[in-house]
Amino acid sequence: MMRNSSRRHFLQTASVATAGALLVETAQAADKPETVAGAPAPVPAFAPAHQLKPVPFDPAKLDGLSEKLIRSHWENNYGGSVKALNAVKQKLEQAWADKDTPPFLYDDLKREHLMRTGSVVFHELYFGNLGGSGKADAEMRRLIGAAFGGFDAWEAEFRRIGAGLGGGSGWVVLGYNLHSGQTENYWLADHLHAPAATLPLLVMDMYEHSYQMDYGAAAARYIDAFFRNIRWETVAERFAHAQHATSGRM
Amino acid sequence: MMRNSSRRHFLQTASVATAGALLVETAQAADKPETVAGAPAPVPAFAPAHQLKPVPFDPAKLDGLSEKLIRSHWENNYGGSVKALNAVKQKLEQAWADKDTPPFLYDDLKREHLMRTGSVVFHELYFGNLGGSGKADAEMRRLIGAAFGGFDAWEAEFRRIGAGLGGGSGWVVLGYNLHSGQTENYWLADHLHAPAATLPLLVMDMYEHSYQMDYGAAAARYIDAFFRNIRWETVAERFAHAQHATSGRM
Amino acid sequence: MMRNSSRRHFLQTASVATAGALLVETAQAADKPETVAGAPAPVPAFAPAHQLKPVPFDPAKLDGLSEKLIRSHWENNYGGSVKALNAVKQKLEQAWADKDTPPFLYDDLKREHLMRTGSVVFHELYFGNLGGSGKADAEMRRLIGAAFGGFDAWEAEFRRIGAGLGGGSGWVVLGYNLHSGQTENYWLADHLHAPAATLPLLVMDMYEHSYQMDYGAAAARYIDAFFRNIRWETVAERFAHAQHATSGRM
Amino acid sequence: MMRNSSRRHFLQTASVATAGALLVETAQAADKPETVAGAPAPVPAFAPAHQLKPVPFDPAKLDGLSEKLIRSHWENNYGGSVKALNAVKQKLEQAWADKDTPPFLYDDLKREHLMRTGSVVFHELYFGNLGGSGKADAEMRRLIGAAFGGFDAWEAEFRRIGAGLGGGSGWVVLGYNLHSGQTENYWLADHLHAPAATLPLLVMDMYEHSYQMDYGAAAARYIDAFFRNIRWETVAERFAHAQHATSGRM
Repeated sequence: MMRNSSRRHFLQTASVATAGALLVETAQAADKPETVAGAPAPVPAFAPAHQLKPVPFDPAKLDGLSEKLIRSHWENNYGGSVKALNAVKQKLEQAWADKDTPPFLYDDLKREHLMRTGSVVFHELYFGNLGGSGKADAEMRRLIGAAFGGFDAWEAEFRRIGAGLGGGSGWVVLGYNLHSGQTENYWLADHLHAPAATLPLLVMDMYEHSYQMDYGAAAARYIDAFFRNIRWETVAERFAHAQHATSGRM
Repeated sequence: MMRNSSRRHFLQTASVATAGALLVETAQAADKPETVAGAPAPVPAFAPAHQLKPVPFDPAKLDGLSEKLIRSHWENNYGGSVKALNAVKQKLEQAWADKDTPPFLYDDLKREHLMRTGSVVFHELYFGNLGGSGKADAEMRRLIGAAFGGFDAWEAEFRRIGAGLGGGSGWVVLGYNLHSGQTENYWLADHLHAPAATLPLLVMDMYEHSYQMDYGAAAARYIDAFFRNIRWETVAERFAHAQHATSGRM
Repeated sequence: MMRNSSRRHFLQTASVATAGALLVETAQAADKPETVAGAPAPVPAFAPAHQLKPVPFDPAKLDGLSEKLIRSHWENNYGGSVKALNAVKQKLEQAWADKDTPPFLYDDLKREHLMRTGSVVFHELYFGNLGGSGKADAEMRRLIGAAFGGFDAWEAEFRRIGAGLGGGSGWVVLGYNLHSGQTENYWLADHLHAPAATLPLLVMDMYEHSYQMDYGAAAARYIDAFFRNIRWETVAERFAHAQHATSGRM
Repeated sequence: MMRNSSRRHFLQTASVATAGALLVETAQAADKPETVAGAPAPVPAFAPAHQLKPVPFDPAKLDGLSEKLIRSHWENNYGGSVKALNAVKQKLEQAWADKDTPPFLYDDLKREHLMRTGSVVFHELYFGNLGGSGKADAEMRRLIGAAFGGFDAWEAEFRRIGAGLGGGSGWVVLGYNLHSGQTENYWLADHLHAPAATLPLLVMDMYEHSYQMDYGAAAARYIDAFFRNIRWETVAERFAHAQHATSGRM
C-alpha cells in the first residue's frame, strides 16, 4: 500500500524535487564553480532560499484546534523561523567573507542556523502530519506496535513525553534511526535538539504556541486534540521512505 | 564507484543488518506481541542491547593522534556512553512500568536517552570516518565543492566551526538534510544537538577528550591531525547512501 | 529613601526570615546532626519544604494583563514548579540513599533541581516586581541610567532582548553582578540559565505562558504591558540590597 | 574569625573595589551622561574592560595538579574567555548602534555575553578557592554540615555530582541562595548555567581541560586532587559575605 500510494504529501514532493535536483547537480558540478564577470556563483549552503510552504490542510477543519491557533502558529512561529533562517544565511555569508570574524562569533551564527533549520524542518513535518482522521490502520499499528510492545504502549509513551514538556518548549518525535535501525520516541527540548541520523515519522510540537491560545496551560487536552487530527497516511509514507532508505545500505 | 563498492565499513554493515532485520520483523509482527507463560515479550524500544563496536582501524597507525588518546577516547568516552545508554534503557523500562512516575521525571530519562543515543551514534560515525589517507578523490571534491562554492571553501568553514568549539564540547557535522535536500555543515554543542532529519556524512568530535591528551588546549593542531586521517571512502559511501535515500522519496 | 523604607515586599521578608534562621542554626549546629531513636534528622538540602507564595498584588487590577492569565501563570507554571521542586528533592533523597545510582543518573535529578530552583526563584521575583505604576522615580532612573548611558538606553536594550525571545522561552534579567560589580541586562533561554553570582533586580518572564493567552504571538504588546505594571519600589529595594551586599565585601 | 580576618583574597578585594566604586558613581550620575565635544561617554554595560587576573597562588606548588595544567587552564581557557567577553562587548555596542540588527541576532550576542560572563566569574572563583591545605576547620565543617546532615554527606554529594560530569563539561557549585536562604550543591553543565540569585561558596571546574592533561579520562582522580588543594579560608570568607548579604535584607 505505502509503496504504490499515488497520493503524495506536498511537503515530501517539494523536498524530493529539491533534493533530487541538488544531487544531480552536484554530480555534474565542477570543484570550483565558475564565475561570470567576477561575480561569484551562488553558494547553495549560504543561499537564503527557504520559502514558506502552504498549510497542507484546511485550517478551519481540524477537530479541537482552532483556525486562529493554526494560522498564528503557521504565520508567526513557522513563518518567523523561515524568515530568520534566511536572515541567518545572509549573515553567515557576510561573516564568512570577513576573515576577522572570530570563530566563536561565527559559531553563534551557526548555532542560530542549526536552531532555525530544526524549527523549519520540524514545523513542516508537524503540519504535514496533521489534517487526518486520527485513525491508524492495521499496518501502521503493527509496524509501530512491534517496536514498542504494542501500539497502545507506544501511544502512551509518546503522550507521557509530551505531558512532561507541558509549560515549556520542545517536540516529541517518533523516529527511525538510520544508524541504529531502531524505531523510538524521542524527547526534544528545543529546536537545536534532534535524534542523530534519524528520519522523523511523527512529530508533535510542544512549544506553548501550539496550544496556549486554545487550551491555556492544559497541555493534556492539546495532546488529545493532536491525536484526533493525525494524518496517518503521511506517517505511513515516511515509514516507507525509512524502509527504502535502509535498504540502500549495501 | 560508490554504488558498486564491495568494501563496506563495518559500522554500516552492522547497522544495516540490524535495521533490515527490524523492518522485516515489524512488517510481520502482530499489534500486541504474544507473551509466553506470562512473561512479556522483549520491547525493542526499551531493550538495553547496545554493544561496543571495535575500533575500525589500527589505533597505533593514525598520523598525529596517539594510540593512547584513541584507546582512551574509545574505551572511556564512547564505551562509557554505550554502557550509559543501556543503563538508561533499563531505568526507562522501570519508570515506564511505574505509573506514579511524574512525566517530568520520566522526561529526565528520555533526555539522557537522547543524549546517549547522540553520543553513541556520533562516536561510531567519528571513528568510522578515521583511519584513511586524508585525501579526498576528485568525485568527493566535486560533490562537496558544488554545495559550498568549492571544496576548499567547505573545508575552511568546517575547520572554522571546529575552531570556535575549542575549549568546550561539541561536534562538527557535514550532513545531508533528507528533508530540505541540502548539504551543509552543522555546529553542535553537545550530544543532544543534531540537525533535523539529516544523514551525517563526516563527523568531527570537538569534546576536549578528543585532543587534550595529545595537544592540550591547541585545538587547531588537532583539527589538522583529524583532516590528515579522514577515511574519505567512508564519506563517499555515506553520500551514496544519502543519494539512494533521497531517490526513495516518491 | 530605600534603606529606611518601612514597606517591604512579602517575598523579601519571607526569604529573609528563612535565610536568617538558617544561618543562625548553621552556626550552632554540630557537624553530624543527632538522630533520635534511629530517625535521621531532616537534611535541609534535601527537604521538600518549598511553599507556594501568594500573588503579591490583586491579579484583577493589572493594566493589560488579564486576571485569567495571571492566575493561570501563577497556579500552573509557578505552582507546577514548586510541586516539581519538592518532588525532585524527595527523589534526590532516595537516589542519594541508593549507593547504586550511577552518578550520571543522579545528575539528571540535580539538573531538574537546578531548573526548578531557577523557575521558582525567577517566578517569585517576576510576580514580585509586578503590581506597580510602571513609573521609575528619578533615583531609579539615575542608578540604571549610569550603567547604560541613560535610562532609555537601558529600557531599549531590555526590550530588545525580550523581543528576540518571542515565540520561545526564557527570561530577561537586569542584574547586579556581585563578583564583577556590574549592572547589566542578561538574556536567559530557560530556567537553567542565570548570570553567575548575580542579584536579579528586575525580571521579565518570556515563556509563552506569560502572554499567549492575552496576546497570542504578539510578544511586543506583552512587553509594553509588562512595563506599564512594573513595581519600581521593589526594584529599588533590590538595588539597596545589592548595595548592602557589596559593602559587606571587606 | 571570618569577619575580622585581615588576610583577604585578591579576587574579592578587586571586585569589591570595582563594585563599591560603581555603586557610588551610580548614585551620583545623571540620568543621561554628558558628552564632551560630541563623543559619547563610555557605557559601563558595553565597556570591554575585563582584565586577566593573576593566578592567586604559586601554580608550581599544588598537590597533584601540574603547573603545566594550571598554566594552560589559566591562559587558554580562562584567558580565552576574558578576551572573548571583551570582544563580545564590542560587538554588542556595534549591534546596539545598528537599529537594523534583528532582535534574535542581537540575542545571539547576549547569549555569548551570558556564557562568557559565566566562564570568567566561575574561573576566577575556581582559581580563587585553590592553593590551600585542603583542610576545612571546625567552623566550616559545622556550617556546611548543618545544611547537609554532616560535612561528609556534603562532600560525598559534591563529589558525586562531579563524577557524573566526567567526560563532558560543567561545574559543581556549593552556593548560598540569597532568595531562598538555602545552602545547596548545584550541577551546571556549561557556562550559561547558574543557580538563580546565588553566591557561590566553592566552585569546581569539570570541563575536561581541568584534568585531561594530568589524568586523562580519570575524572575521579582529579576530584581527589581538587579536594586536596581547596583553600578553605576563601570559602569561609565567601560564607561571611553571604551572611552579611543576607543580614541586609530588611
